[in-house]
Amino acid sequence: MTIDTARLQDMANAIRALSMDAVQAANSGHPGMPMGMADVASVLFQNHLKFDPSRPDWADRDRFVLSAGHGSMLIYSLLHLSGYARPTMEEIRNFRQLGSPCAGHPENFLLEGVECTTGPLGQGLAMAVGMAMAERHLNAEFGDGLVDHRTWVVAGDGCLMEGINHEAIGLAGHLHLGRLIVLWDDNNITIDGPADLSTSEDIKARYEATGWHVVSCDGHDFDDIDRALEEAKADERPSLVACRTIIGKGAPNKQGTAATHGAPLGPEEIAGAREALGWDAEPFEVPGDILADWRATGDAGREANGEWQNRLAGSELKDQFEKRMDGVGDSASAAVTAHIQTLAADPQKVATRKASEMALEPLTENIRHLIGGSADLTGSNNTKTSATAPFTADDYSGRYVYYGIREFGMAAAMNGMALHGGVVPYGGTFLIFSDYCRNAIRLSALQKVGVVYVMTHDSIGLGEDGPTHQPVEQVMSLRLVPNLNVYRPCDTIETAECWALALQTPHTPSVLALSRQGLPQLRGEGDADWSGETNRSAKGGYRMRAASADRKVVIVASGSEVSLAVECADRLEQDGVGVDVVSMVCAELFDQQDEDYRADILPADALIVSIEAGSTLGWERYTGCGGLNIGIDSFGASAPASDLFSHFGFTADAIVPQIQNKLNT
Amino acid sequence: MTIDTARLQDMANAIRALSMDAVQAANSGHPGMPMGMADVASVLFQNHLKFDPSRPDWADRDRFVLSAGHGSMLIYSLLHLSGYARPTMEEIRNFRQLGSPCAGHPENFLLEGVECTTGPLGQGLAMAVGMAMAERHLNAEFGDGLVDHRTWVVAGDGCLMEGINHEAIGLAGHLHLGRLIVLWDDNNITIDGPADLSTSEDIKARYEATGWHVVSCDGHDFDDIDRALEEAKADERPSLVACRTIIGKGAPNKQGTAATHGAPLGPEEIAGAREALGWDAEPFEVPGDILADWRATGDAGREANGEWQNRLAGSELKDQFEKRMDGVGDSASAAVTAHIQTLAADPQKVATRKASEMALEPLTENIRHLIGGSADLTGSNNTKTSATAPFTADDYSGRYVYYGIREFGMAAAMNGMALHGGVVPYGGTFLIFSDYCRNAIRLSALQKVGVVYVMTHDSIGLGEDGPTHQPVEQVMSLRLVPNLNVYRPCDTIETAECWALALQTPHTPSVLALSRQGLPQLRGEGDADWSGETNRSAKGGYRMRAASADRKVVIVASGSEVSLAVECADRLEQDGVGVDVVSMVCAELFDQQDEDYRADILPADALIVSIEAGSTLGWERYTGCGGLNIGIDSFGASAPASDLFSHFGFTADAIVPQIQNKLNT
Repeated sequence: MTIDTARLQDMANAIRALSMDAVQAANSGHPGMPMGMADVASVLFQNHLKFDPSRPDWADRDRFVLSAGHGSMLIYSLLHLSGYARPTMEEIRNFRQLGSPCAGHPENFLLEGVECTTGPLGQGLAMAVGMAMAERHLNAEFGDGLVDHRTWVVAGDGCLMEGINHEAIGLAGHLHLGRLIVLWDDNNITIDGPADLSTSEDIKARYEATGWHVVSCDGHDFDDIDRALEEAKADERPSLVACRTIIGKGAPNKQGTAATHGAPLGPEEIAGAREALGWDAEPFEVPGDILADWRATGDAGREANGEWQNRLAGSELKDQFEKRMDGVGDSASAAVTAHIQTLAADPQKVATRKASEMALEPLTENIRHLIGGSADLTGSNNTKTSATAPFTADDYSGRYVYYGIREFGMAAAMNGMALHGGVVPYGGTFLIFSDYCRNAIRLSALQKVGVVYVMTHDSIGLGEDGPTHQPVEQVMSLRLVPNLNVYRPCDTIETAECWALALQTPHTPSVLALSRQGLPQLRGEGDADWSGETNRSAKGGYRMRAASADRKVVIVASGSEVSLAVECADRLEQDGVGVDVVSMVCAELFDQQDEDYRADILPADALIVSIEAGSTLGWERYTGCGGLNIGIDSFGASAPASDLFSHFGFTADAIVPQIQNKLNT
Repeated sequence: MTIDTARLQDMANAIRALSMDAVQAANSGHPGMPMGMADVASVLFQNHLKFDPSRPDWADRDRFVLSAGHGSMLIYSLLHLSGYARPTMEEIRNFRQLGSPCAGHPENFLLEGVECTTGPLGQGLAMAVGMAMAERHLNAEFGDGLVDHRTWVVAGDGCLMEGINHEAIGLAGHLHLGRLIVLWDDNNITIDGPADLSTSEDIKARYEATGWHVVSCDGHDFDDIDRALEEAKADERPSLVACRTIIGKGAPNKQGTAATHGAPLGPEEIAGAREALGWDAEPFEVPGDILADWRATGDAGREANGEWQNRLAGSELKDQFEKRMDGVGDSASAAVTAHIQTLAADPQKVATRKASEMALEPLTENIRHLIGGSADLTGSNNTKTSATAPFTADDYSGRYVYYGIREFGMAAAMNGMALHGGVVPYGGTFLIFSDYCRNAIRLSALQKVGVVYVMTHDSIGLGEDGPTHQPVEQVMSLRLVPNLNVYRPCDTIETAECWALALQTPHTPSVLALSRQGLPQLRGEGDADWSGETNRSAKGGYRMRAASADRKVVIVASGSEVSLAVECADRLEQDGVGVDVVSMVCAELFDQQDEDYRADILPADALIVSIEAGSTLGWERYTGCGGLNIGIDSFGASAPASDLFSHFGFTADAIVPQIQNKLNT
């Protein structure tokens, strides 16, 4: 494609002006990165990116990810200038103000055109890997005519230095994701100063060692940028394009320094930039001819989309494709119905990680969207089923990903896959290693994507591996994350119910906390005719067993402790004390029930006792005045599980007297 | 040094036998890695490692880190065989049983000789980087005669694939830590199968790109191992020694397969191994001549230690050195006394991150143990002081580390430094990125080291950067971690008090949650004669202000919300309602006070209201029956801080009516 330097320069300077002016107006923000990458971004949008501003939801669009999310004015400028309906100029004027979709860091739920929420360094790139995985997977199923697009990332030094970068590029290199192209803002500046204050790495050599193609260019030479992007597209490997840039380019005195990174330029420097760039338009005004050039960048994509729509309309895979892109709907309940009814007739005592695998069989068989995986713990997480063959560089139709020892990279890739659409990812690791990927789990919640984390080995019940591996605070700490449903099912049937629920909340991610050890099946009675409508876990907490008579105590437990609660209840009942047993499968769902329901399940006039092999802090919300909380608030120990449960007081012998004491006080 | 292959073979097989037999007896554990690395470990201990089994606390010993912590029987075998007092053979027989110090994964607080607690992959190596940093720092101060030792790491494929590995080796390469040597168990096996299931990386090239020296050897050829270790020691760069091994070497049918990774070999395979290795001793018995060879491996170190003791005794730096290795003692209170008294006379309204910097000035001036740093947020975390010059490859005497964008690597390095002894590290990042290093913070607590995490920008009070950066659940989720003190001071004086407390708990790590925004100084009255004994924050929570009369309400708040609590109290007092204001600086310390104190501060007969710009779940523990919890349980938003505090209800206008309502119900 032709490079008209003068026109591209104006187009790039429009980005520079908007960025520095918006940051200045907000008295807050990061002008350096947008000004540094304006030239590269202009070439990308003008000549390479496949997009239709009138259809931000076009399934076959290229994905553009601003991994260096602090440079958010770059993407807001690009979306506005190229003709997306939003952000409007008014919204840009209100950059970083309450109510503006132009938030400090780009948020996917505020603006179409923002593919993912970035800011926490490294994760944008790692999510882009997931988007590229989804693209290849859907291409394997639907063919080049319907699925053939690229994933472009703009990333800075920070994104490349973070540990997650290693995991992300390892995955991408191993999977030969050739349509993934990372444009590295190679400006040699970090917040604390020159990059060599903290790093001496030969980044290009590292990427090549990881199976990537590496190319360099002068980030301020349009022809050179264009040449580099063409080379990147041509190569079969994922590509890193090192764009040598000057941070804050255009700011006459401050460019090239960390001063432009995270603070407004100031009125003097802005005036100087206007002069240096020859830009005399007022803030938030774009000269008509330059705007026209920008608006034209979407033409090729609009046309390509038109052609694509035609191909879709005439394709025999049309219905299948649209269903796939629509999501799972309520097919999950249907998929597990027979399974649960079978369990009702034929109870199984198994670990809930095994129960999860049992439910995954019909789920993965019937719901083709599902792509599973594990961070090198497949046999322990029980995430692979007969319907899921390996997803590899040689066979992208596979539905099982061997993520390797890369928990954070896995979680971010899952986010990217979900955001791409057409796939619903689930991935496993040990619950303790939710710590490693915690901020990606948080981003699942913030971005409102319905990924499912299969987190096994959920307590001291895992036994001998000891305190480094035994979760204590993980379940409760995950309950603290907004918009995250944390499920801890007690048996086979609850586990299947939780899977159904998890797959019915496409805008809320789920964690399944599952046991290593075998657990008795407590459900079954009354489940012979189970259906989605009768999913008892849907209320989050429910009465598993009612007191025989005069109820004095309610024991509320989750997961592996529900059977212990039943045992305690049995003993107390024998002593004439009426005891309800409540299974708190998912506290978040319980919190959403109306007050009457919650007051009925956890009544004010009973002694409420919580039992969970985890932190007690937080349980007071449910056990109220004068309640009793049985839990573990210290690190665990290395021993067989039964010894540990005794040692830490999780036996009826230890608990029942405490309840009786409390009743008598 | 000579290599007597026959004797080394016997010595290595002693490790193999102990490992497979202990795992078998426990019916749990990982025999493959110890059996695979037995040969390498034998050469290391025989010819290279500087250690004195009779003095595991010898300050100038080499450090040995088993980063692949699941192979714990390797280190237990090594410690026992080479003559450490523990583990005894009885303790090894009880591997993975309750009460045995031979836990599933090695725990530093259970066995001398275990330098750090490993298991969560990647962190051992990253902690070793910190140990190597500490060694160079102390060498810069005390010279070669007193400080000159190496740090050896045994790591597996998992440790190298984890994101934290990238951060750790980046730091080590940049800092030219030539005394750090990583022995890579290059067996090409991960849990899910062959390593190439998930990775295609050229690991050696990556390490070279990061400034490391790389050498290979046949992990089962003693001469070759010895040659490689010599080359590693000779090179000025940190070294990776790729030891080609067969996992489970010695197990005739299962060696080389993932089957030996994480399960007992089984009696048949063990019998086969005995035959294949020519090992006929009973389980847990070591033939006398082989044991004698093992016990002799410590001779050189014992002798070296004796010489070292002489050098120390005759050194003019003796007292200084011993003081340094002893720790901080109670010098922190003395260091901040004048500073606090000055603040009492001359109040300052500043952000608590700035208050932290102010306290750090006298602290770093007076306590030479302190080594600070930040993960590329120095100017934001305010962690650098006039007493701390950069710690670099050219000047290891520096006391400020530019960690780069490596939060997890920084936290692990801090753990390693603290475990090494002689340095007390503190490091900064944004509180939201505690998520990135959460498991290292957990390991600080598990390993009982008193590192200090400076976590700034602690709430929606950070403003425009928005929800990806605004902590909501972080403070409460960190309170859930056992043995971790989470401080959230309200002003300059509390911040200095918290620093003093943090530096007085050498076995408990601390998090300082600090504001971005300016906060009024609430303390001062009564602090003119401040001393360590009068540290009001020491009780964790205390009455900042007492009700004028008939107390009806107690408002308990932390950090930036304490001044809001005072404002609310003012208004209610004007309405004739008596209100106490309690500052909950550190919930963990408060929990440790006796019941009378706690009941006095949070009395049963008052309405207790909590105010904290974070999760409400968990506050019920302190606000009890019928309390009121003001907080934020959703993600934040991008806007100036004052707009956000209004928007989310953190104003007296919004809160006082709620309190009045509650009083009237």
